[in-house]
Order: sequence, then structure tokens, then C-alpha cells
Amino acid sequence: MKPIVSIIMGSTSDLPVMEKAAAFFEEMEIPFEMNALSAHRTPEKVEAFAKGAMDNGIKVIIAGAGMAAHLPGVIAATTPLPVIGVPIKGPAFEGMDSLLSIVQMPPGIPVATVAVNGALNAAILAGQILAAGDQQMMNKMIQYKENLKGKIVKANEQLSQLDYKYKV
Amino acid sequence: MKPIVSIIMGSTSDLPVMEKAAAFFEEMEIPFEMNALSAHRTPEKVEAFAKGAMDNGIKVIIAGAGMAAHLPGVIAATTPLPVIGVPIKGPAFEGMDSLLSIVQMPPGIPVATVAVNGALNAAILAGQILAAGDQQMMNKMIQYKENLKGKIVKANEQLSQLDYKYKV
Amino acid sequence: MKPIVSIIMGSTSDLPVMEKAAAFFEEMEIPFEMNALSAHRTPEKVEAFAKGAMDNGIKVIIAGAGMAAHLPGVIAATTPLPVIGVPIKGPAFEGMDSLLSIVQMPPGIPVATVAVNGALNAAILAGQILAAGDQQMMNKMIQYKENLKGKIVKANEQLSQLDYKYKV
Amino acid sequence: MKPIVSIIMGSTSDLPVMEKAAAFFEEMEIPFEMNALSAHRTPEKVEAFAKGAMDNGIKVIIAGAGMAAHLPGVIAATTPLPVIGVPIKGPAFEGMDSLLSIVQMPPGIPVATVAVNGALNAAILAGQILAAGDQQMMNKMIQYKENLKGKIVKANEQLSQLDYKYKV
Amino acid sequence: MKPIVSIIMGSTSDLPVMEKAAAFFEEMEIPFEMNALSAHRTPEKVEAFAKGAMDNGIKVIIAGAGMAAHLPGVIAATTPLPVIGVPIKGPAFEGMDSLLSIVQMPPGIPVATVAVNGALNAAILAGQILAAGDQQMMNKMIQYKENLKGKIVKANEQLSQLDYKYKV
Amino acid sequence: MKPIVSIIMGSTSDLPVMEKAAAFFEEMEIPFEMNALSAHRTPEKVEAFAKGAMDNGIKVIIAGAGMAAHLPGVIAATTPLPVIGVPIKGPAFEGMDSLLSIVQMPPGIPVATVAVNGALNAAILAGQILAAGDQQMMNKMIQYKENLKGKIVKANEQLSQLDYKYKV
Amino acid sequence: MKPIVSIIMGSTSDLPVMEKAAAFFEEMEIPFEMNALSAHRTPEKVEAFAKGAMDNGIKVIIAGAGMAAHLPGVIAATTPLPVIGVPIKGPAFEGMDSLLSIVQMPPGIPVATVAVNGALNAAILAGQILAAGDQQMMNKMIQYKENLKGKIVKANEQLSQLDYKYKV
Amino acid sequence: MKPIVSIIMGSTSDLPVMEKAAAFFEEMEIPFEMNALSAHRTPEKVEAFAKGAMDNGIKVIIAGAGMAAHLPGVIAATTPLPVIGVPIKGPAFEGMDSLLSIVQMPPGIPVATVAVNGALNAAILAGQILAAGDQQMMNKMIQYKENLKGKIVKANEQLSQLDYKYKV
Repeated sequence: MKPIVSIIMGSTSDLPVMEKAAAFFEEMEIPFEMNALSAHRTPEKVEAFAKGAMDNGIKVIIAGAGMAAHLPGVIAATTPLPVIGVPIKGPAFEGMDSLLSIVQMPPGIPVATVAVNGALNAAILAGQILAAGDQQMMNKMIQYKENLKGKIVKANEQLSQLDYKYKV
Repeated sequence: MKPIVSIIMGSTSDLPVMEKAAAFFEEMEIPFEMNALSAHRTPEKVEAFAKGAMDNGIKVIIAGAGMAAHLPGVIAATTPLPVIGVPIKGPAFEGMDSLLSIVQMPPGIPVATVAVNGALNAAILAGQILAAGDQQMMNKMIQYKENLKGKIVKANEQLSQLDYKYKV
Repeated sequence: MKPIVSIIMGSTSDLPVMEKAAAFFEEMEIPFEMNALSAHRTPEKVEAFAKGAMDNGIKVIIAGAGMAAHLPGVIAATTPLPVIGVPIKGPAFEGMDSLLSIVQMPPGIPVATVAVNGALNAAILAGQILAAGDQQMMNKMIQYKENLKGKIVKANEQLSQLDYKYKV
Repeated sequence: MKPIVSIIMGSTSDLPVMEKAAAFFEEMEIPFEMNALSAHRTPEKVEAFAKGAMDNGIKVIIAGAGMAAHLPGVIAATTPLPVIGVPIKGPAFEGMDSLLSIVQMPPGIPVATVAVNGALNAAILAGQILAAGDQQMMNKMIQYKENLKGKIVKANEQLSQLDYKYKV
Repeated sequence: MKPIVSIIMGSTSDLPVMEKAAAFFEEMEIPFEMNALSAHRTPEKVEAFAKGAMDNGIKVIIAGAGMAAHLPGVIAATTPLPVIGVPIKGPAFEGMDSLLSIVQMPPGIPVATVAVNGALNAAILAGQILAAGDQQMMNKMIQYKENLKGKIVKANEQLSQLDYKYKV
Repeated sequence: MKPIVSIIMGSTSDLPVMEKAAAFFEEMEIPFEMNALSAHRTPEKVEAFAKGAMDNGIKVIIAGAGMAAHLPGVIAATTPLPVIGVPIKGPAFEGMDSLLSIVQMPPGIPVATVAVNGALNAAILAGQILAAGDQQMMNKMIQYKENLKGKIVKANEQLSQLDYKYKV
Repeated sequence: MKPIVSIIMGSTSDLPVMEKAAAFFEEMEIPFEMNALSAHRTPEKVEAFAKGAMDNGIKVIIAGAGMAAHLPGVIAATTPLPVIGVPIKGPAFEGMDSLLSIVQMPPGIPVATVAVNGALNAAILAGQILAAGDQQMMNKMIQYKENLKGKIVKANEQLSQLDYKYKV
Repeated sequence: MKPIVSIIMGSTSDLPVMEKAAAFFEEMEIPFEMNALSAHRTPEKVEAFAKGAMDNGIKVIIAGAGMAAHLPGVIAATTPLPVIGVPIKGPAFEGMDSLLSIVQMPPGIPVATVAVNGALNAAILAGQILAAGDQQMMNKMIQYKENLKGKIVKANEQLSQLDYKYKV
């Protein structure tokens, strides 16, 4: 079994955020790999990874990083694969620094950006991208979306039991 | 020839931004459709579009909107297809309103967000997504990226001709 | 007794904020309903709710949501009733994401926006709207405002007892 | 004919923004009044206006102001009528100063805030509030919303005539 | 002994911030008064206070408020006395809402604004204003500034005792 | 005639903003001086000015600066006189850089901050400070405020002549 | 003559900003080179440049870039030379995107950041760095700073000729 | 042994941030001094320090400050030595106030700015500046960067041991 999605994070301190992506791939039975590679501390490893990813069978890359978050953009510069960027909330600015560092890519090199700390959504987006060329994956994604509705229906039932005199 | 990418914009005033996406699809010979649909003024049309897109053969949706930009998220809520959001700079806040309205999607419903007014990057990202399941498209994308380098190499030649005494 | 105000929230995690609105309606003896409906996870339910609200006797809708808060705008797009939006502070940006996603509605579809986490003010505003066509409700609202003054008068008495040598 | 809506602006320099509200009331045949009153330069006039508004038959107040925009909040403090605030873009901060000065009202005194320079939406919201207790007004508002759709349908027709080879 | 400085706060919840101003006046033996008056909940009391302040012997007013902080501006609109505004950090936006609501006053009505939660600096500024026409107060202020230097000189001595091998 | 107010600006490019302060002092017949002194380019001159200001008869200092606006704070550090800071809008950030550089002074050294480009308000505030110890000046300030009202009353008359069918 | 400073820019559109650095090196007779290299479009060229810079005799690198400005950080990751970053104001956010993308570097890889569009200051800083190990350069830098004072002294003379009746 | 780097902080409360710089110099065996000097409370001491630093053998200055952080700029105004500024996160605005107060220096007086609380990076940058004229120091810096890679390689090994069924 070869991985088709690669999760990269700038540091192991990003793991509590990024493991939500891993959990999604587990649930969806999508083979993935997960590595810590820093655009700033191990640039050659990042380059080697990005250059080889397509030939190694990777279809989508998810890269999470905080502060001046260059990792997703640097990978996107070197691979034709779609790169999803997860801005990670750091010690200042509530994640605005990583959001702008990831989303404001110049013309020619897009990074598909999700919400601050939005690793689950990055994984779902990866699933949707895989599904673009794979009907079986598409069926899984449709099922996944259906299940989401169940949760909020249950939430609503909870609300209906709140006890107010003028709540009808 | 049926379209495989759909470009949606919230208003025809968004056309000067969004037509950069159309130009990319022309250049890459990717059949596309382009419509103005407003999440707020024609919600039923948006819903009908989003519900039918996959069955109509669409693989990726690009949605551009300004201000409280709900269009990409509303479409993403109704289709399992990947949705790319283009925040459009409006009359205030330099596009920060549309960026946050598009990128900060809650868990479960991602929108792949690009830079403010980044319609070209949205189109390139759509090309990369199509290429995930289509080797011929992947070859085109690789070629496209190669051409980008040519442009900056030429730019550098211009710089080399600037006349300074201490420039070596 | 049929509800005349409807409180909607995007998720039950918004309840601690939104129940301040419920408490106001209890105090004012205004019949209300309260539901969790997500613009992104249960779009059809939101649409069905918004389409039927007026015929079901609802006069004002209060919708609270966080992050890319589309719920108030999506409801406003489908009903002629006045919609009050409550931006809810989420995991990043101190509520600026939901504030801009709610208040920056495009021309044609207003959402009456209150402060971040301002559910009590949303409820008071709903009371004022109901009072526009109902003298008895107006009298209640006038009485409510009068009571607010009493609280700050008491607060001032507390201050007057602070012990400083040069405080006169 | 007595006015039922009052448009207040902090200065005549706000007129180019605020006259969109006036135009709406003309179109809807809703009698209104329009005055320049400054919370800072003519506080007694503001107070006299706010105290008398309800007895003078006003049902809704629209107040537009820029910079440290106190006018809507100051009026709301003195009248039980619903007050709609229009933040006006000033010489700095893209309207963020007036938006926060208007929307972040403390518990007890709501101001229904619309988008920066959103005077048209303020007027539509006023129409919706009037309609809460007036079926004829409600019918007009429903008709108005219907017309909005027509505009975007036309916009879409324009788009369909754009000439691209790969646009289907 | 009649007060010459008046400290006003929007709510008793602002007391932990504002009492730093009171402590300064105690230390400097400047008679002051301290009241909670809300621009929004007790507008007539604010007006009565502002109108009478000068005749009551007040020379400077310090007003602290949070969120849409209208209190300092509303007082400044009604008195010719100098008004110092203290933006108070509230539940969102790190005090940016109150800062902009206080500092961005329109031409004609200044409020002398200090840092977020900067009640001590407001009191020192009041002391400097009183000193403009009172040589004895000026002498006290000069002495106060001198004492500040002592504190940082002591701080520096602490640093000099830190034990590092390469610290010289 | 000796000046009692000193206007300092960081650069002559700030003159179009700062001359509104000069115009006020002309109108009020308050003797003033005006100099360009840079906290960064001529620090000794700034220091010499700040040290000597009080002995030279200056009662209030107004300092305007843009970008990392240190001038007001640096002067305030060296004189016991009240210092009013005018943040000047520079080439980026809409004046937020100079506003925060001026208003966020640490405990002990206040700068009385006014709105971005608010030189007129700085001058009025200086007038109010001078009036704290000078009844004649106070009378002038009261007259000045009165005149402000006249302007908005006239503005209102203009509005009353606008021709709308439903404006009452 | 071999260059000892290297100016890099992400695109030739950055030239109007970056040429202020070139002008400084001309004036100071410091040999330099100037190239356009994009972290995103020509990553291998950037890497080759950064790897070889020290051996080619470069002592300091100045890198200017806009939007998600990765160029300075990517170079800093690959060379032990000091890298000065110039955030360039782009089409949105007033340069905040490039400022945060450059200054918020993670621990281990600093970029010496200057003001938005601050290419002249980047060049002066480069001069100061060169001067750290070169007394002749230090003398030039001291002379340069001296000249700056002359300019503001002249500016002040201009001010002294402004004609006001109450200016002393 | 004479110090060649000087660490200055505005207050001893900045020590927990700034001591990361001290730790770096210890590790690299670079002699340094460390002092608390406030631009606002002890301006003469700051001036005396800045004037004498070069003659005392200092090569680089690191200055950390919070809020309206004038210390780095004030020092840079008085010395030809390179000054590195560390914005320190204060009680509001997540460090944005100190970042803008430090980085937005006007033309002529650069401050080399690092990330909010980025004292370690300031020290590394100082090391790189010293290395510009000192080959032995350069060798140390190259070794330091090499060691950084080791840490992330280890981090990656940790990740490889995470137990997921679909992680390959």
C-alpha cells in the first residue's frame, strides 16, 4: 500500500493540529504519509520531497505551518501537485501571520488555503480532490457529508429539550 | 463539448477579476462555463446549480465574491465537488472581509481559498485538481509551470541592463 | 401560543452565547423558538425554515454564527422578515471573521448586526422591532430601558463607598 | 403626511452615502425626514430629536456617521425605537473605526448595524421593520426582493454572450 | 476640599483599571471625585454632569469606557474642559474597538486619548494639565518623573547580578 | 510676544496636516512657534528643545509624526509639560502604525493622542489645556464651541432644501 | 571589482521600490549586484544563488518581495549571511501580508526586516553591517548620518519663513 | 574580555523574552552586556549609552521593547552601529503595537526588526553581522545552522513512530 496523500508540518509542535487530518484519512481508509519538514531548517529535504512526490505516487499534499508560514508555498513552487495549506495559530496575531503568508501567493503558484488550524477541512478537501478522478472516493465523500448532517440534527434535538416557559 | 469547470461570480462587477480564470482555461483548452449567481439574490438558482453540478459533468467549481462573500461556502455546502473561493476586493477593508468570509469555513465544509483577486491562481489550482486523475492534464500543467520560469528569466535580463557604476 | 421570534444558531456550541437572548424573551414573556441549523451542514433545513418562517407567524429572526458566519445572510436571502445577526467569537481573530462575514452584506439583503457575542442586544433589538407595530410591546421595552438605569445608579452607589483620602 | 422614518447624518459630507436610503424610501413611497445632527457638535439637538421621535410618529431611525461614530449609539440611548447604524468610511482605517464604534454597543442598548456605507441596506432593513406590523408594507418588501433577482438574471445573460472558444 | 479632577467610568466593571488613576491622585494629594455614568444607560446624568462640571470646580475629566466607548466623546461634546479618554480592553478585539471609538473624534471635539487600560497615564496627564496653570503642581510633577527614573535604575542593578559566563 | 504653544513636526512633509493647528492658533490669537525636528535625524535638537521648553515659557507641546512615530513620546520623556501627539497617515497601514506608536505609551509617560491627521483637534485640546488656568482663554474656547454648532445648523438647512416627494 | 552586496527582488515590478537601495550603494561606492529571482517561479535559481553567495564574496543580501513574501526567508534558510527583507506593498492589505510573511520568521532563521517599501533603509542597514568589520565603511556611514541632519535643518528654515501673525 | 554585543531592554519585565538572546551568546561564547534602559524614563542614559557604544567596542546592539516601542529607534538615531529591534508582546494588540513602532522607521534610520518576542533570532542575526567581518565567527554560525537541522530530523523520527493503520 503506497501513500497517495502526504501531510507535512513545519514542526512537531504542529502535530495536535495536523493529526485531525490524519484521523480523517484513517476513517476514510486513504493511505497517507506524515512528515515534519521545515522550509527554513531543512530546505534541501523539502525540495527533495517536493521534487519526488508525484513520482512517488502522491496525489495531494497538505502542508501546515505557523508564523511566516513558507512551507506550503515553497512546496507548491516545486511540484505540479495541488498543495493545501493549513495556517497554524502561533504565539502572536491569532494566526493572521500564517494565514496571509499562505493565502497571498503570487500569480502562478496557488496554495489552496483553509481556515486557521483547519486541518480537518484540509483533509476533506484532499478527499474531494482525489474524488475528482475516482468515483469510489466520490461515493465515500458523499457519504461523509451525509453523516455531518446527522450530527447537527442530533444537536437540534438537544436544544428542543431546553426548558423555557416561553419557548414553544 | 461539455464544461468540466464552472466559474461562478456573485455579480457581473466581479468580471474584470474573474475573467483571468477564463483566460487560463482558454489557454489550456479546458472547457468551462461562466455564470453570475448570487448567494443572496438568487439563492434557489445557486442551490439548483450546486445540486446539479456533479451530474452535469462539472469536476471543479470556482466561485468569486466580495464583501460578506457567502457564495463559495454556500455552494460547498451543497456539492461534494471541490470548491475554490476567490475573495474579491470590495469598497472597504482591502478584501479582508471577503477573505475571512471565505477561508474561515467551519469543520466539515472546506473552501480552497486563494489570494484576494487571485482568479488566475484559482484556475491553475483547478487545473491541478483535474490533473490529479488525468495524466494529459498533468503534462499541460507541468508545461505551464515551466513557462512561468521563462518569464522571470527574461525579467532578470532586463535588470542586467540597468546602468549603475557600482553594479557589477 | 405560537412563537413570534426564532433564534437560530449554527451549532449547539453557540448556546452559552445565544441563551442570553432566550433569557430576555422569557423575562419579556415573548414566545420564541430556538433551533440549531447550519448553513453549511444542513442547507436544505435552513432554506425550508427561512421559506416558511413568515407563514408560521415568525416576525423576527435572530441568527448567531461564528467563523465564516453565513447563517444570518443565507436566511436573510430567503425571507422578507428582518434578520438580526450575532457574530460569535471563534478560535481565531477575536470574532473579526464572523463580524465581517455578517455585517458586510451586499446591497439588497441587509442583516441587522450586533456586537460580537451580543445575543442579549439582538433580543432587545427584536423586542424593539416587534414594538414598532405593537403598543403593548413598546410599553414593555420602555419599562426595560428604565430598569437598566437603576442598575448603573446602584453601581454608582458602590463607587461612592470606596475609601480614598482625596476622593471627595 | 407625517414621516415614519428619520434619516440622521453626522454631517452633510455624509449625504452622498445616505441619499441611497432616501432614494429607497422615495421608490417605496414611505414618508421620511432627513436631518444633519452631530452627537458632538449639537448634542442637545440630538437629545431633543431622540426624545421626541416616537411621539412625533417616527417608527425607525437610521443614523449614519464616520470616524468615532457615536451618533447611532447616542440616539439609541435615548429612544425605545429601533436604531439602524450606517458606518461611513472616513479618512483612515477603511471604515473600521466607524464600524467598531457603532456595532460594539454594550449590553442593553443595541444598534442594528449594516455594512460600511451600506445606507441602502439600512433603508431596506427599515422597510422590513415597518413591515413587521404592516401587511401592506410586507407585500411591498416581498415585491422589492423579487425585483432584485431580475437584475442578476439579466447580468447572467450578459455573461452568456462573452465570447470564449472553450466557454460552453 | 472640592474635587478638581473627575474620574468617570462606564461601568463598575471598569474599576480595576480606573483605580490606578485614583491611586495617583491620592499619592499626589489632588482632590478628585469618581463616578460610574453610562453614555448609553444614563445619558441624562452624563449630560447633567458634563454641563455642570466646570461650574463645580472641575478642571480635567478622565473618562474610561470599553467596546463602542462613547462616554469620553459624549462628555467632550458638552463641556469646554479637557477630557482624557481611557480605552478599556473588552471581550473582543483587544481594545481596538474602544481605542478607535475614543481617539477618532471628528474635527472640533478632541478627546486626549491614552493607551488601552492606561488609567495611570491618564491621571499623570491630568496632573500635567493642572500644572499648566499651577507652579506648585508643576513641581510635584517634576518630582514624580524623577522618581520614575529611580525605579529603572534599580531594575538595571537587578540585571547586573544575572550570572552568565560571557556577560561582562 | 513669547510663544506659549510649540508645534513640532517630524518632517516638512507633515506641514499640510499640521498647519491646521497653526490656523487655529492664529484664529484664537494664541502665540505659538513651529519647528521641524526629527526624533531620528536630529535627536540632540529634540532633546535640547524638550529640556528648554518649559523655561522658554511653553505651556503645551503638539508633536505630529508618521510611521514609527517616536517624536511625541521622546519629547514627553524629557519635559514635564503636557504633550499632544498627532498620528500622521503615512505610505502604509492607513496611519495605524503612527497611531499605535504614539498612543501606546508605557506607564509613566503619557502622550495625549488625537485622531489620525487630527491636528486641528490637537490645537483645540491645547487651547483647553491653556484654559485650565486662564479664564479668558476658557471664554474663548466656550465661544469657539458655540460657533461649531452654527455650522451644523446651516448644514441642516441645506438638507431641508433637498427635493424628494416623500421627504416631509 | 566584485560585488559585496546582492539585491534580489521577486519580480521586476518591484524595481521602483528596490532601486532606492541601488542608488544608496552608488552614492556610497559599494559594489553590488541586482537580480530578479522568485522563490516561487525559479526556486532552483534562488537555491543556487543562496548556496553560492558567500563563496562569491557577498557579505549581505537584501531581498524585497510582496504578498506572501517568501523570498527573504527562503534565502535566509540556505545561507549563513545576514539577509535583510523589504516588505513590498502589494494589491491588498497595505503591505501587511508581506510584512508578516517576512518578519515572523521562526526561531533559528532570522530575517532583518525593515519598513514596508523601505529599500533605502535596507541599504543603509547593509552599510552598517559591512561597517561592523571595516573602519573605512564605518567612517562613510557616520558621514552619511551627519548629512541627514543637514536636510532637516534646512527643512526647519523653510518652516521659519511661513507667515503667521501669531507665530513667533 | 570586553563585550561586543549589547542587549538593552525597556524594563526588567522583558527579561523572560530577552534572556533567549543571552543564552545564545553564552552558547556561542560571544561576550555581551545586558542593561535595562528606558527611552521614556531614562532618556539621558539611553543617549549616553548610544553615543558611547561604538567607542566602548560594541559592534551590534539588540534592543527589546513593548507597546509604543521607541527604544530601538531612539538608539539607532544616535549610533552608526546596526541596531536589532525585538518587538515584545504587551497587554494589548498581540504585539502589533510594538512591531509597527519598531519596523516602520522613516528613511535614514533603519532598525533590523525580528518577529514578536523573537530575541533568539535577534541574537542569531547579531552573530551573522559579527561574522561579516570575522571568519571564525562565520564558521561558528555555519555550525549552528547545521545543528538546527539535526533537531528537525529527530522530530521527524518521532512522527514516524505514530501509530496509524493507513499511515505508510
